[in-house]
Formats: sequence, C-alpha cells, structure tokens
Amino acid sequence: MIIDCHGHYTTAPSKLSAFRDAQLAGLKDGLDIPASAQRPISDDEIRESLENAQLKLQRDRGTDLTIFSPRASAMAHHLGNETTSRRWTRACNDLIHRVCTLYPENFAGVCQLPQSPAAPPAQSAGELERCVRELGFIGCNLNPDPSGGHWTSPPLTDRHWYPLYEKMVELDVPAMVHVSASCNPNFHATGAHYLNADTTAFMQFLTSDLFRDFPTLRFIIPHGGGAVPYHWGRYRGLAQDLKRPALEDSLLKNVYFDTCVYHLPGIELLLKVIPIENILFGSEMVGAVRGIDPRSGHHFDHTKRYIDAVPLSDGDRYRIFEGNARRVFPRLKVSATTR
Amino acid sequence: MIIDCHGHYTTAPSKLSAFRDAQLAGLKDGLDIPASAQRPISDDEIRESLENAQLKLQRDRGTDLTIFSPRASAMAHHLGNETTSRRWTRACNDLIHRVCTLYPENFAGVCQLPQSPAAPPAQSAGELERCVRELGFIGCNLNPDPSGGHWTSPPLTDRHWYPLYEKMVELDVPAMVHVSASCNPNFHATGAHYLNADTTAFMQFLTSDLFRDFPTLRFIIPHGGGAVPYHWGRYRGLAQDLKRPALEDSLLKNVYFDTCVYHLPGIELLLKVIPIENILFGSEMVGAVRGIDPRSGHHFDHTKRYIDAVPLSDGDRYRIFEGNARRVFPRLKVSATTR
Repeated sequence: MIIDCHGHYTTAPSKLSAFRDAQLAGLKDGLDIPASAQRPISDDEIRESLENAQLKLQRDRGTDLTIFSPRASAMAHHLGNETTSRRWTRACNDLIHRVCTLYPENFAGVCQLPQSPAAPPAQSAGELERCVRELGFIGCNLNPDPSGGHWTSPPLTDRHWYPLYEKMVELDVPAMVHVSASCNPNFHATGAHYLNADTTAFMQFLTSDLFRDFPTLRFIIPHGGGAVPYHWGRYRGLAQDLKRPALEDSLLKNVYFDTCVYHLPGIELLLKVIPIENILFGSEMVGAVRGIDPRSGHHFDHTKRYIDAVPLSDGDRYRIFEGNARRVFPRLKVSATTR
Repeated sequence: MIIDCHGHYTTAPSKLSAFRDAQLAGLKDGLDIPASAQRPISDDEIRESLENAQLKLQRDRGTDLTIFSPRASAMAHHLGNETTSRRWTRACNDLIHRVCTLYPENFAGVCQLPQSPAAPPAQSAGELERCVRELGFIGCNLNPDPSGGHWTSPPLTDRHWYPLYEKMVELDVPAMVHVSASCNPNFHATGAHYLNADTTAFMQFLTSDLFRDFPTLRFIIPHGGGAVPYHWGRYRGLAQDLKRPALEDSLLKNVYFDTCVYHLPGIELLLKVIPIENILFGSEMVGAVRGIDPRSGHHFDHTKRYIDAVPLSDGDRYRIFEGNARRVFPRLKVSATTR
C-alpha cells in the first residue's frame, strides 16, 4: 500500500472560496460573515473536484491513500481575527471530512487549525479535538508563523505552544509544520516561505529540550525538510558546537521528513542522509508545482518516480511508502491493500 | 591556485569587539561613540589573530587565497542607527584592509556595507566606492534584511536597491548576499536565518527582471545556495509554472553559489545539479561550524575534502577552485601560484 502523507484539497469546489471571498469582503466592512453564508456543496460537486485531480493522479501514479488537508496557502491565518479564522477553518475541515466520508479508502483527514496571530494555541486544541474525535481526523497542520511572513509568534519550542502539544499527545496525533501564504513581499510562498519555515522549525527543535517535555510528540517537516538534509553536516556540526545531543538521539525520534522534493538528485540525497525510519512518502499534489518537466515528460511532483529509481530493500520501500506513516499517524486505520 | 571565496575575520583582535561593545553601550546612554575611541591594533596583533587560525588552516588544507570580509554575524545592521553602522563598518573594513596589506598573497578584501533599516542603499554606495577604489577591495557583502530577522526592507529586486547596484556595476564588483545576526527568536543565525536568506534571495531573483535591468550585476548566494540546489526541481517547476525563463537562461549568468556545505552528499548534489560555471569554492572558515566531525576526523568546514572526493575533470576543478572566482571577482589581481 502506498500512502501519500502530504496532499492538500487545492481543487475544492469554488463555493468554498466564494465563502472565503465573502468573509474577507465582510471584514472590510466590519462584518463577521456567518458560516451559514456558505452555499451548500453537493456530494457530486465534491466528487467532480477530485475525480479528475487527486483521484486520477492516485490511479495514474499507483498510490492508494492520501493524508489530506485543506489548501495550505489558503489557511492565511493572518487575515482577519480569531473568529474569521475559526469559521474558515471549520468550513475547510468539514469539507475534508466529507471527502474522507465519500472516499474512505482514498483519503484520511488532517485538519487546519483556527490559528490567528493574537490567539493562544490553546484555542486550536478544541478544533483539533473536534476533528479527531468527531470527524476521525488523524493529524493537523500547525502554522509556526500565523502572521504570514512576519514571524511574530514565539518559536515552536516555547511554552506558548504547550497547550496544543498536550492535546496532540493526548489524542496521539502528529502535526505537519506548515506555513501558509506570505504577506511579506520578501517571501514567495511556495518558493521561499514554505522552505524557510521547514528549516527554521528544525533548528528550533535542535536547540531545545521540547522532546524531553513531550517524548511522544511528533512533527513532520514537509518539503523534504526544507534545507535541512542538504545541510545535514552543518546541523550535525552545529549540534556538536552547541553541546546538544547527536541529531539521531535528540530529534529523530520525534521529527520526520516527507519526500516533496521534485527531482531525483534531491531524493537521492534525502534517502542517503536521513534514516529511512524518518522518511514518509509525500507528493504535495495537487500543489506547489503543477507542471510537467520537459526533460522527463512527467510531472515534477510525481515523487514516487524518483523513489522508485533509488535502489532500496523491500523493507525500506515499505517503511517509506507505508510503515512509517502508520507509525507516525497511529489513528490511520485503513487496512493494507494488495496492489 | 585555490581561492576560497567565503571567509570572515571571525578571529579579529578583541580591541575591535571592545570598540563595538563601547559603541553599543553608548547607544543605551544616547551617546555616539566616535571612531577615535577604538584602541589602536598593532600589526603584530593582526598577525597573531591569523597565524593560528585562517593562515594555519590555509596551509593545512592546501588553499591559497581567501576572499575575506568582516565577521558576518557581527555586522548587526539592526543595532543603533545609521551613524552606528557607518562607524562600525569603517572600523571593520579598515581592519580587513590591513589584513590584506600584511598578507597580499593570502587575502583579498570584501567589505561590509553601512546598512541600517532606515538608511537608503544609496548611502552604502559611498563606502563601497571607498573600499574598492581606495582600499583595493573586490566585492561586498549585501544584507537583504538589515532589520535582523524581521524582513522589513523591500525585496532585493526592488528599485530601492538600485543605487547600490549601479555602483556595483560601475565598479564591476559582485555582492555576496549575506544576512547577519538575528534578533528574531524564531531564527537561529547560522542554523536558519542564513540559509533562509539564501533561499529567499534566489526566489526573489527568479520572480523578477532585475538582470534585464542590470545584465552584468553578479551575486554569490552563500552556504551552497541555502535550500536551492536540493530543491532545484521545485525551482525549475516554479519558473515554468510562473512563465519565467528557464533558470539557466534567466539567473545563472548573474547568480553563483559557494560550496559551504558541510558533508559529502550535499557537495555531490550541488556539483550534480548546478552548472560548474556557477560554483565557487568556499569554506566559510573560521565560521559557522568550528568542530571536527567525529565520523571523519576532519573539520566539518573543510569543504575542499568533499570536492576532492568528487570525480571532476581538471577543467572543472580549475573552474570551481579558481577560474569562476576570477570571473566573478574581476578586480582580483593576485597571480596564479603553482602549488
């Protein structure tokens, strides 16, 4: 079975973004647009939005199940206030739940959190609990920078975030560290802000004792870990200079990387330097890069091709494509398929 | 001849940092400490600061010349005001000049710029001109984020920076894009802020027509280009999705990467995906990582070892170790040695 740990509902029916547009327009007029303003989305509209997108790509690429969350760039926690974020988050998560209910063999839900620059993370714990206990979600996306490129929140290792971590531990769900759109003109979202956040989070973890406080807390750092595997020697050296434990001992029981790296040499490096136990297959589809590489004739984000091109034992292939995801997302209950 | 394009004077005599300390202490009391407050540094003190550090490492590692600039993390453009920055910058640059005068075969100067969050880049052009025309410097370090981790300046592709670029073009000198210390607790300087800035700058260049306006402007992106080579497929795909020219056509006539990547797999990736013409040998010594890798018994930042371990033609080795640096830094006049 092949589990893609990183997919976003980037093709959601336009009624979802229409609600968001109304919500943001309302903000300008000082209005809180209620959730009831959203026009109902039919099951057929949901099916249509997926059949020629994620489901087609699953079939074409030979993957089975996508761990699926709302569009990351649209979370935009920096827009509006806490109420704005809470309503938008619920709308997005409820739609993911409907996707997972319609296609239980193809999708498992990961939720957006109702973060907002001024809101304490404890307020995200309630939505996480709702999504996990009532909707059957198996994880969440945690934005380390709800300000959208101004980085005004404390580091992820600060006690500021502990109430959310306590809930994650209680529910036994991991978080993918995932920023959203950038309102800082310095940072292109998918070309800089995303990768910077990945790199930043890893270094925050490296310099802290967070996992001593939460030994079972688990994070996935997406986009192949940002700059981290490419600079693995730098991080090993920094850990040593800073008198921190070796990375394998201090971080790799809690931190995982996905395979959203869009060329073979990058995947080769990832698989060479990061222990296989810490790598989860992911493609970020349909996501950051949508085109076809003219050199290969295949989509840039068809990351399974790159992994298939690396010589791996059956055990290691199983770990990357399925086993590690089951370990990191223990609430994932879908049974193995024999493809 | 082996030219290291990326070295900082991290071992400068303590009288330099004593001046800085006095300057920063003065700020608290509302005093502008004059340059004359700096205690004179003797030639012997300079020699001593280098003989057992950079010069010893050059000998040990078999490198010849270091393109040498003030300590990057100490630039700290966010501290104080424009006057603070101008005085500190002159003190640092003048000391680099003395190093290069004492050891003309071993060091060539690259200057710090008197940036400050509120100062227009035009004001850095004067110090650049002084350093190049009067002190014989061959390039500069340009901080894309003088706020020190708050990213409040316009992107490097904004016209805001053009007056400095005009001076760089007139003088025919490149800039290394290099941030300094971070006062944002989210960003560890050498473990996150540096790499993020590298990644950020590249994506800014990718999305702009800067090099149409300045066809001969040249930037070195240090630390192996941040996350960029590891994500080369992502950048090729983003360029295509954004209807930008291919990276080779649009950026690689103006943008270069150094080899400050502290393990062999990272260097292998860099040399595989980035054209050899765009790679300049660098070690960042004595710099970000000072320790010895217990696995190899060698310093993490002994980057020449990694390059030596990659099969390369004589021509490609020459380009990485000397030829590209001479092309990017045409003011470098030191003649080739036969080692």
